[in-house]
Amino acid sequence: MSSQPRAALTRLLPYLTQAQAPLTREVEVRDEFGQRRTIHIPAERPLTLFVDKREVVTLMTLGASPELLALGYLRNQRLVESLDDVDSITVDWDVEAAAVKTRRGASPGIGARTARRIVTTGCGQGTMFGNWMDELDALRLPSAAAARIHQATLHTLNDAMRQTDSVHRRAGSVHGCALFRGSEMLKFVEDVGRHNAIDTIAGWMWLHGDSPLGQGADKIFYTTGRLTSEMVMKSAQLGVPIVISRNGVTQMGYELACKLGMTLFGRASQRHFICYCGFDRFDADPEPERSPVRVVST
Amino acid sequence: MSSQPRAALTRLLPYLTQAQAPLTREVEVRDEFGQRRTIHIPAERPLTLFVDKREVVTLMTLGASPELLALGYLRNQRLVESLDDVDSITVDWDVEAAAVKTRRGASPGIGARTARRIVTTGCGQGTMFGNWMDELDALRLPSAAAARIHQATLHTLNDAMRQTDSVHRRAGSVHGCALFRGSEMLKFVEDVGRHNAIDTIAGWMWLHGDSPLGQGADKIFYTTGRLTSEMVMKSAQLGVPIVISRNGVTQMGYELACKLGMTLFGRASQRHFICYCGFDRFDADPEPERSPVRVVST
Repeated sequence: MSSQPRAALTRLLPYLTQAQAPLTREVEVRDEFGQRRTIHIPAERPLTLFVDKREVVTLMTLGASPELLALGYLRNQRLVESLDDVDSITVDWDVEAAAVKTRRGASPGIGARTARRIVTTGCGQGTMFGNWMDELDALRLPSAAAARIHQATLHTLNDAMRQTDSVHRRAGSVHGCALFRGSEMLKFVEDVGRHNAIDTIAGWMWLHGDSPLGQGADKIFYTTGRLTSEMVMKSAQLGVPIVISRNGVTQMGYELACKLGMTLFGRASQRHFICYCGFDRFDADPEPERSPVRVVST
Repeated sequence: MSSQPRAALTRLLPYLTQAQAPLTREVEVRDEFGQRRTIHIPAERPLTLFVDKREVVTLMTLGASPELLALGYLRNQRLVESLDDVDSITVDWDVEAAAVKTRRGASPGIGARTARRIVTTGCGQGTMFGNWMDELDALRLPSAAAARIHQATLHTLNDAMRQTDSVHRRAGSVHGCALFRGSEMLKFVEDVGRHNAIDTIAGWMWLHGDSPLGQGADKIFYTTGRLTSEMVMKSAQLGVPIVISRNGVTQMGYELACKLGMTLFGRASQRHFICYCGFDRFDADPEPERSPVRVVST
């Protein structure tokens, strides 16, 4: 037996509860035919985040993975520096709270971090604490030689997203996102907000830390939501160089992605897509052109 | 001539700049056929809001109506109590700032208001300062007898939204919303975030103050975005009793609307829709049922 203490070899992961709550509810509605119908709608509930008993924020969420959401929020907002600082996350839906206990007491930077707010597009007004923009220059994505995607893979991912059993399929009105390695779906998350969904992915990756699952370089991020500045930045901070959306891009999302050398796809559906930038990572295998419609005058 | 001073009769409106910025830009992309194409994408730019030189927030916006957005944000977040308190809003895109000057100095409540954050669904994480939930009980919408909508009007509004020349039509990836009185479109707004869009409508209504245009009771609010809790609450705070979305609803949006006695429509498109609640305001004129498809075995 080695004399080295075991704690030095294994990583002490935070304790996370596994709080459950219904993700949809039934409501009785009327349609254009005057008929009563029963449909499902997605849940939306407040989750107030406390760090060492200090209230930080209230997130409105579907509630599928509240512990990972809390963890990813702490990570993405830079409220906690390292996973090692997190002792436990206890979610209790009865009081709609996520209590985060840290190992070293509250992050000393938390006061300064929460002092400056940026309300992001987010199809709404997301909050980013701190100065993300200042951190941009330090971000390095893997080279185009190291991280590539083939057109056939893109179609496979479209299919995988479409075929995943989801709250969206039952109830609509949620955003989905997923982390892929090649064609393999590693994690699928849905939430009422697409920022929550990517934060949850960030929490999941953080838990996997130094293992290959925790690294972004060989991953592809897929979202059903739009690619605004914040979505591009969050992907870059996770180190993920290829991002696909079923939706479109905004100017700032586009310009950030260009600057970061990220490969962005939008309007991805079935066999269609647009590649906005980062063409050098993309192994195109063009679809045959549709034959032009012949107009025959009679 | 009356001896009454003119200032008592007319309302002193705030001075607003009319800052302009391009709403779209062209980018060269590649599609699934391997073709280079030039498309338009919507602008997204930061707008930092200062109230009496105090930095409040940075909003990410399309930039179509920055002054009204700033005004509506102040209103909806309760950062300024009355339009009369606003002396001017000066937007300068060169420095990406909206400088609000108040008439009585900074709102005394602004420190307390900004201390508590709720990050809302917003398809992201919107910020609401203060305790909106506490104000819910005070909200009163007009009775079903006073504010109604006919099925034919609903179809007319769908058509009006579809036919409006828009950034969405040119570039996609923005949310649109509009304020209607009957079938008349009073104001149409687009933004990268749907919360920004409704805030802009709120700013426009505030400017019209006590005039019929400024009142919500006889208005209909139409949005292309989802009806989450915050969207329902913002509509209710504007006094608008009927809300239509091209999209769906979340559980909290639904439950709030029920509690408030609001009439909610979703999935509105062409002649289709779902009425989620507030049926008593709705004059149904049901579509004829589609004939069932006959399957003939051969």
